[in-house]
Amino acid sequence: MKKALFTIALAFFAVTGFAQQALFSRNVVKSPEINADNTVTFRLHAPKAITVQLTGDCVDGVVSMKEDSLGVWSYTTAKLEPELYSYSFIVNGMRIPDPSNIYQNRDVATWTNIFIVSAQKGDKGDLYSVNKVPHGNLSKVWYDSPTLKLTRRMTVYTPAGYETGKNYPVLYLLHGAGGDENAWSELGRAAQILDNLIATGKAKPMIVVMTNGNPNTAAAPGEWDFGMYQPSMGGGGVQMPQAAASMDESFMDVVNFIEKNYKVAKNKANRAICGLSMGGGHSFAISKRFPTTFDYVGLFSAAISVGQWGDRTPLLDRMNTNAEYNKEMAALFGAKPKLYWIAIGKTDFLYQQNADLRKWLDSKGYPYTYRETDGGHIWRNWRIYLSEFAQMIFK
Amino acid sequence: MKKALFTIALAFFAVTGFAQQALFSRNVVKSPEINADNTVTFRLHAPKAITVQLTGDCVDGVVSMKEDSLGVWSYTTAKLEPELYSYSFIVNGMRIPDPSNIYQNRDVATWTNIFIVSAQKGDKGDLYSVNKVPHGNLSKVWYDSPTLKLTRRMTVYTPAGYETGKNYPVLYLLHGAGGDENAWSELGRAAQILDNLIATGKAKPMIVVMTNGNPNTAAAPGEWDFGMYQPSMGGGGVQMPQAAASMDESFMDVVNFIEKNYKVAKNKANRAICGLSMGGGHSFAISKRFPTTFDYVGLFSAAISVGQWGDRTPLLDRMNTNAEYNKEMAALFGAKPKLYWIAIGKTDFLYQQNADLRKWLDSKGYPYTYRETDGGHIWRNWRIYLSEFAQMIFK
Repeated sequence: MKKALFTIALAFFAVTGFAQQALFSRNVVKSPEINADNTVTFRLHAPKAITVQLTGDCVDGVVSMKEDSLGVWSYTTAKLEPELYSYSFIVNGMRIPDPSNIYQNRDVATWTNIFIVSAQKGDKGDLYSVNKVPHGNLSKVWYDSPTLKLTRRMTVYTPAGYETGKNYPVLYLLHGAGGDENAWSELGRAAQILDNLIATGKAKPMIVVMTNGNPNTAAAPGEWDFGMYQPSMGGGGVQMPQAAASMDESFMDVVNFIEKNYKVAKNKANRAICGLSMGGGHSFAISKRFPTTFDYVGLFSAAISVGQWGDRTPLLDRMNTNAEYNKEMAALFGAKPKLYWIAIGKTDFLYQQNADLRKWLDSKGYPYTYRETDGGHIWRNWRIYLSEFAQMIFK
Repeated sequence: MKKALFTIALAFFAVTGFAQQALFSRNVVKSPEINADNTVTFRLHAPKAITVQLTGDCVDGVVSMKEDSLGVWSYTTAKLEPELYSYSFIVNGMRIPDPSNIYQNRDVATWTNIFIVSAQKGDKGDLYSVNKVPHGNLSKVWYDSPTLKLTRRMTVYTPAGYETGKNYPVLYLLHGAGGDENAWSELGRAAQILDNLIATGKAKPMIVVMTNGNPNTAAAPGEWDFGMYQPSMGGGGVQMPQAAASMDESFMDVVNFIEKNYKVAKNKANRAICGLSMGGGHSFAISKRFPTTFDYVGLFSAAISVGQWGDRTPLLDRMNTNAEYNKEMAALFGAKPKLYWIAIGKTDFLYQQNADLRKWLDSKGYPYTYRETDGGHIWRNWRIYLSEFAQMIFK
């Protein structure tokens, strides 16, 4: 087939037309280039631009790029710590992607370019990379949710060797507001983290179930029959359907489907649930609604809700006075979960809610483990929390 | 959880930082807007731009957009026929994506925005859309290829109801040069086409296996341990590994894995193979190398190779004189495949190769079916060919 490939490549260069132009016109510089010292150089060929800037979590806010005599704008960062970074260019005031970098991810309605810096085996950059290790499969799976009256989509990670294995434990891994069943595998690098932790023996081989936590939708935008709408955090002018029930009310539809169709161990010791932000709130709610179901609960920057929507009583007061909440939490901790893990960043806007929860748990003598990191309500933290939580469960 | 969602949304608006800016700064206009008469309006808020243009297969080449007093540039197309369209904006000479449209697909190293126009049930736009029908699952599956000495990734579509079904037929669906195991599901809308054809009874429920046809790589760019390289048709400065064998030499590794791990009918009547361009060439080569394996063969704009690489003898002469080719084709047609289907566009640069193949088949009296469309070497044609081929097989 070498000849065919060669013929096609030549022919593509020779002919004109939209598709061919798009294929070949934009890839003239290398960007980003991760240098040997872990500084990173960005480049953009834009000879007509007046200003070109770089923004992202790899620089301090917005920085100016500098043009050379060929119209290539560039910027080299300081040495970067191992991490997955996001960035965009700003050309004449308009944010655009790097045309030399196909790697992007989507957060709600925004695509940004990504790259990974790693200094050595086992650091964060390495943990988020696709390495020479056995890989699990990632599947987009439709399941029936009678409670939500929807056939819905989830992402299921099955670890390497699943075809011949059995009795796997299951981690239910929930996204935050604005996210969907793609968030953890794309923004969260869940498959890479699990592949790498399992390959090095740091985590048990497990199935990871990444649900869609928006009970009024069947799947990610464009992946169900609601059309190709533009997602947004605040509604965005799209009139979405009403949900038939809440995520916590409907969650056993997910568990039942998984336990019917996958080779899993069906007991409390082999079920874990965790999530970020709204998904942390879901994990909080689901674990107390089904107090004997999960032995491991992880709240990552959790948005904690107690009682009715719209109740403006301080959270700690609600925890102290809400009878149903107290009953559910008593049942949950009475069943002695092996791990109740609360993780949050020092500058997270939900810090106080989680401090209130800890204070209340302390007052009751309910055991939990607390993990505090730098930073706020960002994926950088949630990837760390998943990496740590995955190593503590099913052991 | 409604309260938690509300709290988070408010908090996001209140705080500052890169992630939050990125989430909220770019989604102020609706674009594209598919109007009731199937004209389509594009909009871009770019008050500082000097020129804004639109390019794509929904307009004739490049057209100028017009600015209003608020700095919103817009353009409305003529009425569009049902189809999946691609487009980009060009701002001051630089191609950028539409920031109001999260829907994009990648062809080699280029991302372009997409949208779908449909006028009625059953037209092409409808066939490529996610409709209210049962959906199959789409899985990224790792398999062992002893012949290529690689653990490799493929995309597997299992039809709705697979959990409880059995004895499915299998369509092996191969991509072209520059593509990978994601091409058919993303650019080709394979899952939507199959979902819709199966739901309306026009195609049999089948498994569709979309392999990676580059025998020197394990998976799509960024999905294997070669790092986050920038793909290109011509090499692009990246020194890729050497392949241990060709795709046709190694293809039974794929078939063996599928037949071991999926609920399939393991006979010729339940195997089909087809592909586009290089993948059409692969289908041509694999079907004659394994002449009793597939009852259905589809060549879509196929890049046909006979004999050694670098042989500049005209194709028809090689077909007439190459003994191995003649022996393999005699074995293939001696086994009486139910369908040998050749499809190509009138202006495809591979038209003559396929005309030569037809001439040679005619001279031998080997039966085939020929389908000629307008247009050239483009995904618009390959989606049509998949839609038609899928309706002719396993019946």
